[in-house]
Amino acid sequence: MPGGSSIDKDLGLKMTVHLDGMASASTADTNTTESTDTVSVPHPVNVTGKDTRHRNHGNRVKEEITVIGPESKFHVTPVSEEEHELNNRVPSRPTPELKFELDDEGDTLSNHNSITALLSSKFRDIQKRLKQYGIESPRFRKRLVSKWESLNYDVCENVLYIKEQEKYKSKKWVTLRWLSKWLVMFSIGIMTALLAATIHFVVEKLAHLKFDLIKHYFDDCAKNNCLYQPALMWMGINLVITVAGAALVTFLQPMAAGSGIPYIKSYLNGVKIPGLLTFRAFVAKTLGVVMSILGGLACGKEGPMAHSGSIIAAGLGRGRINFCNGKSISFYSAFRNDHEIRDFMAGGAASGVSSAFGAPIGGTLFSLEEAASFWNQDLTWRVFFSSMVACFATNFLISAINGDPTKLTDPGLVRFNAFKFDLKFDLIEIPVFIFMAVIGGLSGALFVVMNYKLTVFRKRYLNKNWIKIIEAGLVAMVSAAVAFGLMVGINDCTDKAPFDSHAVTAAVYCTDKKHNSLSTLFLTTPEGCLKALLHDPFESHGPVSLVAFVLIFFLLGVWTYGLSVSSGVFIPSLAIGAAWGRLVGIGVAHLMPENPNLQLDVGKFALIGAACQLGGILRTTISLTVIIVECTDDISFGLPIMIVLMISKWVGDFITTGLYDMNVEVMGIPTLPFECPPLCDDLRASDVMSHPLATFKTKEKVENIYRMLKEETFCGFPVIEDDPMAPGKGKLKGLILRNQLLVLLKKKIFCPEGQVPPRNITIKDFRDFYPVYLKVSEIDLSDEEKSYVMDLKPYYNPSPYTVEQKFSLPRVFNLFRGLGLRHLIVTDEKNMPMGMVTRKDLAKFRVGSKRGLVKIEQLKIEDK
Amino acid sequence: MPGGSSIDKDLGLKMTVHLDGMASASTADTNTTESTDTVSVPHPVNVTGKDTRHRNHGNRVKEEITVIGPESKFHVTPVSEEEHELNNRVPSRPTPELKFELDDEGDTLSNHNSITALLSSKFRDIQKRLKQYGIESPRFRKRLVSKWESLNYDVCENVLYIKEQEKYKSKKWVTLRWLSKWLVMFSIGIMTALLAATIHFVVEKLAHLKFDLIKHYFDDCAKNNCLYQPALMWMGINLVITVAGAALVTFLQPMAAGSGIPYIKSYLNGVKIPGLLTFRAFVAKTLGVVMSILGGLACGKEGPMAHSGSIIAAGLGRGRINFCNGKSISFYSAFRNDHEIRDFMAGGAASGVSSAFGAPIGGTLFSLEEAASFWNQDLTWRVFFSSMVACFATNFLISAINGDPTKLTDPGLVRFNAFKFDLKFDLIEIPVFIFMAVIGGLSGALFVVMNYKLTVFRKRYLNKNWIKIIEAGLVAMVSAAVAFGLMVGINDCTDKAPFDSHAVTAAVYCTDKKHNSLSTLFLTTPEGCLKALLHDPFESHGPVSLVAFVLIFFLLGVWTYGLSVSSGVFIPSLAIGAAWGRLVGIGVAHLMPENPNLQLDVGKFALIGAACQLGGILRTTISLTVIIVECTDDISFGLPIMIVLMISKWVGDFITTGLYDMNVEVMGIPTLPFECPPLCDDLRASDVMSHPLATFKTKEKVENIYRMLKEETFCGFPVIEDDPMAPGKGKLKGLILRNQLLVLLKKKIFCPEGQVPPRNITIKDFRDFYPVYLKVSEIDLSDEEKSYVMDLKPYYNPSPYTVEQKFSLPRVFNLFRGLGLRHLIVTDEKNMPMGMVTRKDLAKFRVGSKRGLVKIEQLKIEDK
Repeated sequence: MPGGSSIDKDLGLKMTVHLDGMASASTADTNTTESTDTVSVPHPVNVTGKDTRHRNHGNRVKEEITVIGPESKFHVTPVSEEEHELNNRVPSRPTPELKFELDDEGDTLSNHNSITALLSSKFRDIQKRLKQYGIESPRFRKRLVSKWESLNYDVCENVLYIKEQEKYKSKKWVTLRWLSKWLVMFSIGIMTALLAATIHFVVEKLAHLKFDLIKHYFDDCAKNNCLYQPALMWMGINLVITVAGAALVTFLQPMAAGSGIPYIKSYLNGVKIPGLLTFRAFVAKTLGVVMSILGGLACGKEGPMAHSGSIIAAGLGRGRINFCNGKSISFYSAFRNDHEIRDFMAGGAASGVSSAFGAPIGGTLFSLEEAASFWNQDLTWRVFFSSMVACFATNFLISAINGDPTKLTDPGLVRFNAFKFDLKFDLIEIPVFIFMAVIGGLSGALFVVMNYKLTVFRKRYLNKNWIKIIEAGLVAMVSAAVAFGLMVGINDCTDKAPFDSHAVTAAVYCTDKKHNSLSTLFLTTPEGCLKALLHDPFESHGPVSLVAFVLIFFLLGVWTYGLSVSSGVFIPSLAIGAAWGRLVGIGVAHLMPENPNLQLDVGKFALIGAACQLGGILRTTISLTVIIVECTDDISFGLPIMIVLMISKWVGDFITTGLYDMNVEVMGIPTLPFECPPLCDDLRASDVMSHPLATFKTKEKVENIYRMLKEETFCGFPVIEDDPMAPGKGKLKGLILRNQLLVLLKKKIFCPEGQVPPRNITIKDFRDFYPVYLKVSEIDLSDEEKSYVMDLKPYYNPSPYTVEQKFSLPRVFNLFRGLGLRHLIVTDEKNMPMGMVTRKDLAKFRVGSKRGLVKIEQLKIEDK
Repeated sequence: MPGGSSIDKDLGLKMTVHLDGMASASTADTNTTESTDTVSVPHPVNVTGKDTRHRNHGNRVKEEITVIGPESKFHVTPVSEEEHELNNRVPSRPTPELKFELDDEGDTLSNHNSITALLSSKFRDIQKRLKQYGIESPRFRKRLVSKWESLNYDVCENVLYIKEQEKYKSKKWVTLRWLSKWLVMFSIGIMTALLAATIHFVVEKLAHLKFDLIKHYFDDCAKNNCLYQPALMWMGINLVITVAGAALVTFLQPMAAGSGIPYIKSYLNGVKIPGLLTFRAFVAKTLGVVMSILGGLACGKEGPMAHSGSIIAAGLGRGRINFCNGKSISFYSAFRNDHEIRDFMAGGAASGVSSAFGAPIGGTLFSLEEAASFWNQDLTWRVFFSSMVACFATNFLISAINGDPTKLTDPGLVRFNAFKFDLKFDLIEIPVFIFMAVIGGLSGALFVVMNYKLTVFRKRYLNKNWIKIIEAGLVAMVSAAVAFGLMVGINDCTDKAPFDSHAVTAAVYCTDKKHNSLSTLFLTTPEGCLKALLHDPFESHGPVSLVAFVLIFFLLGVWTYGLSVSSGVFIPSLAIGAAWGRLVGIGVAHLMPENPNLQLDVGKFALIGAACQLGGILRTTISLTVIIVECTDDISFGLPIMIVLMISKWVGDFITTGLYDMNVEVMGIPTLPFECPPLCDDLRASDVMSHPLATFKTKEKVENIYRMLKEETFCGFPVIEDDPMAPGKGKLKGLILRNQLLVLLKKKIFCPEGQVPPRNITIKDFRDFYPVYLKVSEIDLSDEEKSYVMDLKPYYNPSPYTVEQKFSLPRVFNLFRGLGLRHLIVTDEKNMPMGMVTRKDLAKFRVGSKRGLVKIEQLKIEDK
């Protein structure tokens, strides 16, 4: 067998790599007798032994990366039937034929070399770059951060659980549980709608007050030459409110920054996001978003609704209110596990989206698309129900605010549906739309790239709380100043009444029933601005104003997203797109002056432009498509919208990922894609697993358990048979989680050896600590207690999911993804645990595309 | 431990049942030393041994059900930690405390007994009923039919596969494969649209000719008293065309009968449906549906479009044309496996729905909802793309047929969107809608129950081909006769012009520019009838005509669905609902004569009625909701539609299952639900698995293989280590499929013992037989060859999914469902295969609800 060599010594990485190109595959049958150079399969070592070998994750990567022992080679086994016997081999001489053929990027795979070369080149590349930048500057999009843990979706079927199940094993309980799930979903919908309507009411009223005030001084001072007054006032108001909002978010719960959608997506994907679903986050999010909008930032309140809805859902699911002083009132605890909370949260996110956009179907899809590996029809119906309730209740409440609750005309916070004409399109317009989609994709990608650079800059240099707050205030002031400057500088007056009769329009230098065209865009909330761009008459906005608006709002949007304030990116994206869409519309109307309909249709182009821009920035999935179509309220126009969304996504994907995905990547959250990356078929479970393992015996000394929890960062420990003949090499008995062990230690469920162990613990004791688990530092053990023995038998999960070491990566991936696992134990043929596959071991293979070709990169796992 | 007894001896079923109520659970700790009465765990027996024990499935159930040996007990293990050691126990004395408390149905679970009691009572019940009816009359909805096999979604990663993968392991190939998938999806969309437009064109033209002819004679004869002429002519035309259509379906491919949607759903769920995706089915389906509609049956052409689209997709995916004479042209074979074909089929079904209803989002959801456990975002995009292409192309083609291809006004074959007023609803109308939804749910359930009785009757007594054809002809004649009778008998004349300007309206006895109101409903295709009911002016249809129409069309609909013709149930359901919805609208208008708008709004009530009726009959899932909303083309009206669909579903579900589910149940197709049924938590893998197993050694005698394939119906065989010390008890090495073995035998990949086995076989040889595999009868072996040995090592799947016997049913279920498995091997602690879980072992636990309470029943597995 060709291949097999020690390389990369100079980089401090010792890897044995077996290269197996097509040649080796075709000749594998003939040279089987020589293939003794492969792969010793590492066995688990008992944790008491000193061991410095490489762990694929955990927080010791940095120190240990140079001390890789012979057992942890990253090997790609050759393609031959002999691999079935690989257990019986010993590692031996590296053969010298190894050759790498790297293509220009050094991190992609060319035609005639294998994944092996790629991986090694990837390592090398990372090493080089690290040296270049110094070790402190991580490459944000090329790493996973080790602090992110998985959710526990799998049920631990230990004796306690089965005992509890017994109690509720009756038709009545099953039906009751079913009903209460529906009831919780109903409450989620209602409460989300209440929240949405309240925010809407407060923002509209206060923003109107603010802009009325500014307008008043503006118009006065335009005559009296005191324009510095409204400018300073505007900047001052923005500064104060925004700084307050930023401080709220920064100090109360930094997780509440931004739209929250990247976090929600990651949570639904199966990643635990500490602090995301707390009451503090709720307060920071909801108050924060009101302040952000009143503070004049280029942001919307729609994205944060998904987050707020999720928090409401998690709170209702847990049935407990936590107060700031550490006390709490508990109502019910039946749903306190990751599985149920995730289901409710799917409903909450859907309700949030639904009440924000009046899009119950889109909201449902939004949730289910992200939680896709767990879709089931029953859950779908519940999510849909809560989404519908939210939409309906929001409609009722906002209609009531507007004066006629039974008319039900406002199903969401933002709608595009108030076109005065029927939206119809003609086939000949499709090429124009496609052209716009390409622009949208390109400018969207530009938005993402610029925001990425800014994010990296912020991560490196603006990471102190007070700097974050100052930056937010600065953006708010600049927003006001620039808007002011444009309104004064561009003398674009119009006598067309604005679409929105509530609009605040300043005359500034305009006279005689005319008003400043830009004032309809800047003296309003971002939603009002979007409405104006979509629905105002053709003559309302001149090309010069629009060009200036697009440029300024684009830059403000880039700068605003990622500030430490609660803010959404939907509305600014749509507004930017609507503005340049209107420009395109004006252009088309000028090209064909004989067709008067085109002037009427300028709103149509604005709508398409908005969709293109949003598609380019967010890379709309199917759910976002549905959301926009539902917002437009006209399905006949759905087809062009779908087409432009797909095209703008493709164009954008050609250049970079979407904004949310960029966020997830920068935070290093190990989300799993829907399918295993290609070209990884010949990796085996034993190649990707973390090892050596930390294992426990079924009866383990308290001291060992305590030390292990303190020293290791693992969250799950295989429990093995206590074999006195071969210590640490027993058959797999089960899996116990860190949280369980901590509760057991806390409750002192142990006894001196030989005595009957105490059993005074129920599943409720474990559940009481959900979701904020104990820390090792909270455990207090005397020396005597440390010598005691804990019987793990009743507590570990006796049937964890396992795979044999020969399992290929794609199948391991499907298993992990399909079941939403947290730990997957890799065993050898004798059912002894060899290693553990966790989320990060799989998420580190990321697929991307570069210039139309598929590319795979292996991410590094770092501490921060 | 209480419980544990031999019962049911009188019924010929020997079961040891361990009852473990709450009492046993709470005292499990104290009496552990006595619990020696449990459960010997059966080991696999080598197939050469004679064995008459019960197999959970296979075609021998009938003979073997009374000869259950001691090993195959259906045991429910008690809740205690000692179960981990259950391997070491022997069965012993049954304790006498066993009690059953059955509730009135005898097949549901009451509060204080366990699943055990339920299962045994179920068995007893089935036995009783069987005796009552005689063994020949199966209880159609209480059984699974053993002939249905699973699809192979799991990849067999044997050496051949890995070798082939090596070849295509490059960026170029991955990208090419990715592109060709998109290309195939594009072609699917285009071809489905072409088909839809062609069918639409042909049906519209021919139906118009037919009804024009009848109308002509009708009007003439009404004056000249020769009404028997048009009656006979109408019945004659119907008879001839319908009999031709029925004969086509019955003789060419019976799978083409009905709408095909129950089959498509089952296929996407993972069940192999032989003949479903063949060219013959395509011809029978498409020509058949044209003939059914021209033959005057109460059916639509929309449902069959999903089936036709799927066949197109499967054909394009396979890249092969099979001719009738057994020859075929093969274009490409890369996608010839169940996994890829299923993906394409999802696109095909979506395209079909999309071009039928102009509902690209609904179509996508329709596919993905059914194939939900396999949803991934990449696939979603492809399906959405093909769905959108289909919608767009259909729109273009039908618009072109109507004269203006660039106007794009007809996105699907049927639309509800041509309302002359804006669809708006007021909150006060919601109670009326809810009332209608309840009616819809009840009448829908009545439809299903009546059709079920009819289906059972057909299965028992009308199972000859010629009887089926005669029945279809009879229905067609009766349809014509009844329509004729109503038009002559009910003298409802109107002078309102019908909505559709192409409508054929007969005057019959009406004079002076008036026409017979019922003629607009009967002298047209069912779609035309639906359109008339939705859009005709208030005065067009009188209450008497509508009542008569509803009754007649309901009965005709029940009678038509299930005939051996290609027909859909969407349109008749909608038409029935629209008719009684219109009645409700007329009633409301009469109650409130002061509100003239209500008369205008009669179409709104018709639309809601249609949705209610469809929801009641089909139990709309979320996808159907979206389809109807997309058809209505107005999202603001989406909310009441969603509400009535949910309510009609709930009301209907309270009584019986939906029509498609009823179909699936009657056919005994083992579809898996989305979640494991409740109350089954204490069943273990070892309880549900089929055993004993038929196993092979890694080197097996050809004779043994041949005999096993001939004698057994298993489709997968575990391969075990050849342990000379304990024959038939080796460790699990892999899994080999029946299809693989048949190909190996056919290609004679064996040799005399001791020689080097031939290797002249590639993965393409296996693929060439997809999807119609070899039969044992096609294998021809000489006696000498039978003494040879086959080396299975390069061909079996070396890493099949396995679970330990202790796995609980819910987790086995999730694994099976989440990964779309066909075989799941149950092993003991030493990694020796003990049994196999297949789809039917899981599908036999069916959850239902009875009077609002959850109920579980265990289905029987029968041969037909």
